[in-house]
Amino acid sequence: MQMRPLVLRRASLIKRILTTHRHYSTRFGYAHSRCLVFSRFGQPEKVLKLHSYSIPPPYDDIINVRFIASPINPADINQIEGVYPEKPEFTLGLGTGDKSAVPGNEGLVEIVSCGSKVNPSIRPGQWAIMSGPNFGTWRTYAQAKESNLIMIPDKEGISPVQAATVSVNPSTAYRMLKDFAGLEPGEYFVQNAANSGVGRSAIQIGRLWGLKSINIVRDRPDIDKLKEELISLGGTEVITETEAKDKRHMAKITGGQPVKLALNCVGGESATNLARILGYNGHLVTYGAMSKLPFSVPASALIFKNIHCHGFWISAWSKENDAAKSQMIRDILGWIRDGEFKDIPYETTKWSEDTRLETLMEPVKRGISEYSGRKGIFMMEDD
Amino acid sequence: MQMRPLVLRRASLIKRILTTHRHYSTRFGYAHSRCLVFSRFGQPEKVLKLHSYSIPPPYDDIINVRFIASPINPADINQIEGVYPEKPEFTLGLGTGDKSAVPGNEGLVEIVSCGSKVNPSIRPGQWAIMSGPNFGTWRTYAQAKESNLIMIPDKEGISPVQAATVSVNPSTAYRMLKDFAGLEPGEYFVQNAANSGVGRSAIQIGRLWGLKSINIVRDRPDIDKLKEELISLGGTEVITETEAKDKRHMAKITGGQPVKLALNCVGGESATNLARILGYNGHLVTYGAMSKLPFSVPASALIFKNIHCHGFWISAWSKENDAAKSQMIRDILGWIRDGEFKDIPYETTKWSEDTRLETLMEPVKRGISEYSGRKGIFMMEDD
Repeated sequence: MQMRPLVLRRASLIKRILTTHRHYSTRFGYAHSRCLVFSRFGQPEKVLKLHSYSIPPPYDDIINVRFIASPINPADINQIEGVYPEKPEFTLGLGTGDKSAVPGNEGLVEIVSCGSKVNPSIRPGQWAIMSGPNFGTWRTYAQAKESNLIMIPDKEGISPVQAATVSVNPSTAYRMLKDFAGLEPGEYFVQNAANSGVGRSAIQIGRLWGLKSINIVRDRPDIDKLKEELISLGGTEVITETEAKDKRHMAKITGGQPVKLALNCVGGESATNLARILGYNGHLVTYGAMSKLPFSVPASALIFKNIHCHGFWISAWSKENDAAKSQMIRDILGWIRDGEFKDIPYETTKWSEDTRLETLMEPVKRGISEYSGRKGIFMMEDD
Repeated sequence: MQMRPLVLRRASLIKRILTTHRHYSTRFGYAHSRCLVFSRFGQPEKVLKLHSYSIPPPYDDIINVRFIASPINPADINQIEGVYPEKPEFTLGLGTGDKSAVPGNEGLVEIVSCGSKVNPSIRPGQWAIMSGPNFGTWRTYAQAKESNLIMIPDKEGISPVQAATVSVNPSTAYRMLKDFAGLEPGEYFVQNAANSGVGRSAIQIGRLWGLKSINIVRDRPDIDKLKEELISLGGTEVITETEAKDKRHMAKITGGQPVKLALNCVGGESATNLARILGYNGHLVTYGAMSKLPFSVPASALIFKNIHCHGFWISAWSKENDAAKSQMIRDILGWIRDGEFKDIPYETTKWSEDTRLETLMEPVKRGISEYSGRKGIFMMEDD
């Protein structure tokens, strides 16, 4: 009976500091972070809890950051379920009874305050995104180090959502188009799940690099509308899975020009068909398995057509390519700023001081069921 | 009724020239070549015929060669069936009524005589093998150009069978071990069909290069004898397909050391299991499909283990790598000469002036049914 008033008093104190000094307040006192946490792997509805903890002022190389926007990616949900190979660190440092971790891998932060040994070019008010996975981005405040962050040098013309979503989907598309097949302007690539976040990014980056794209989407009633939309983003051709299986249709599209790269997010028959569409020396890059089906590669395609199959995982790539990642993020943000790169469809959920667990769970649940729907994004209110 | 004596007389004349002057005779007259031919794709028993034709003396850059030994490879049979992407040239140059081709891609020849513009380092009596596919090696004499041949500079210590079989099986193993995974001494590779010609070659080349091999063979009653034999060739471990599926058994073998390369000649579940055995960044190279089953690659292995799948086809490689091929042949023949490289099991069929079609068809028929049995080799009699 003693505890409750004490907690309330402390929360209210922190709230007052935050409200009075806005986020700079943390330079002088404790910040109050609200976060989703989980202490064991399982279905998000069962294992996620809402938790609050205090963050002390930064010292030495510590940087206090405020989250502005954190996307909900399929990988985040797989990570909570425990079926993702990248595991977060479970810690008692959040003040939870059991060792817990904060979910979320992608996010945009604002620098709030810096310890005395932080690089002086990093200043309050600047934006940054996570340099790698596992930071735990589904929270309102956190402490970071410079190595956790990629600073965004110029936020002019960039929306919070655009900055927050740059490091997974557009980055995956960028690397797959650049790193596997040595594509030159005028050459073809093909992709399934072309309406996904990565798919829409690949269409646009392909257009910017002068590549021709064959974009395969699932058969659906409103196909003409979707075709029109993806063509307007810069797709060369948009076809259904059924059309993609028709050899003559494919030959008509390419005029016999070989397709050198295929991007596969689906698996199953759709992926096997990509191997068929590829030309001699082609590369098939898998970055997802939406159908949850493995795919067969005919030995003849490997041996006689010299097809190569690879996988791509942005998390693993990011860990080993700091400099290239920063350059890539600058490229993509540059295109966004110039109006050359349109957002993927998204839906935001406001996250303020008093947002309840149920509200935060809504986009998470949608993320489980709708892999190719609108991306959910937590938008943290600057309260 | 007129034809028969004429043909007999001519054959007898040629025979006399050949017998008197042995093969040098062709410098002064016509050689008499006997060959298998086919004028349409189909089952070898149905489409192969025995044919004789005359070969004029060589002029300019022409080299007359006598075949010493020509292997019967699975690819040769697939080529006759028309299911092999590499097609021979069908020509009227052999004197057949219909356009015909000579089957056989691999073979050892002896130089018989050279035209005036042939490189003078090429001299009668020297040995050579085919530089690429499609020459048509199932015959006794032929005309070639220097570009068709890889000269064997020193035949000392090399048997005709060894020289004749060097360019497909040992060469395929050599390239797959060298070109895909950057294997260093002490590192592991794994292969299925370890008892095949390529498999036995890979075991031995692996031993010579200091690599550790895990050799998977089909479950069979006389497994211990086969294990002993392959270990004696230099295999590190020999296990059955059943044992290879047991994760704990595999971990015990490698002691947790990652397997960086897998060679797949089988397909189906056996190949999928190779992908499971491979460690992070591993390469799976397919060079055959003995089971005739395609194989599935789990997307997780591609994405999270960064497995790469390739195919390897020695015919395509040979066309683009003249210099590297010559060096490789020298390496392998050097090992053979030094007693470091043992023959794969084989069975010869003598081919002399009067050998009948039925006799020549026997190893071809065996080649259709026994992919992993003894390799059949035509041995041409120097008559």
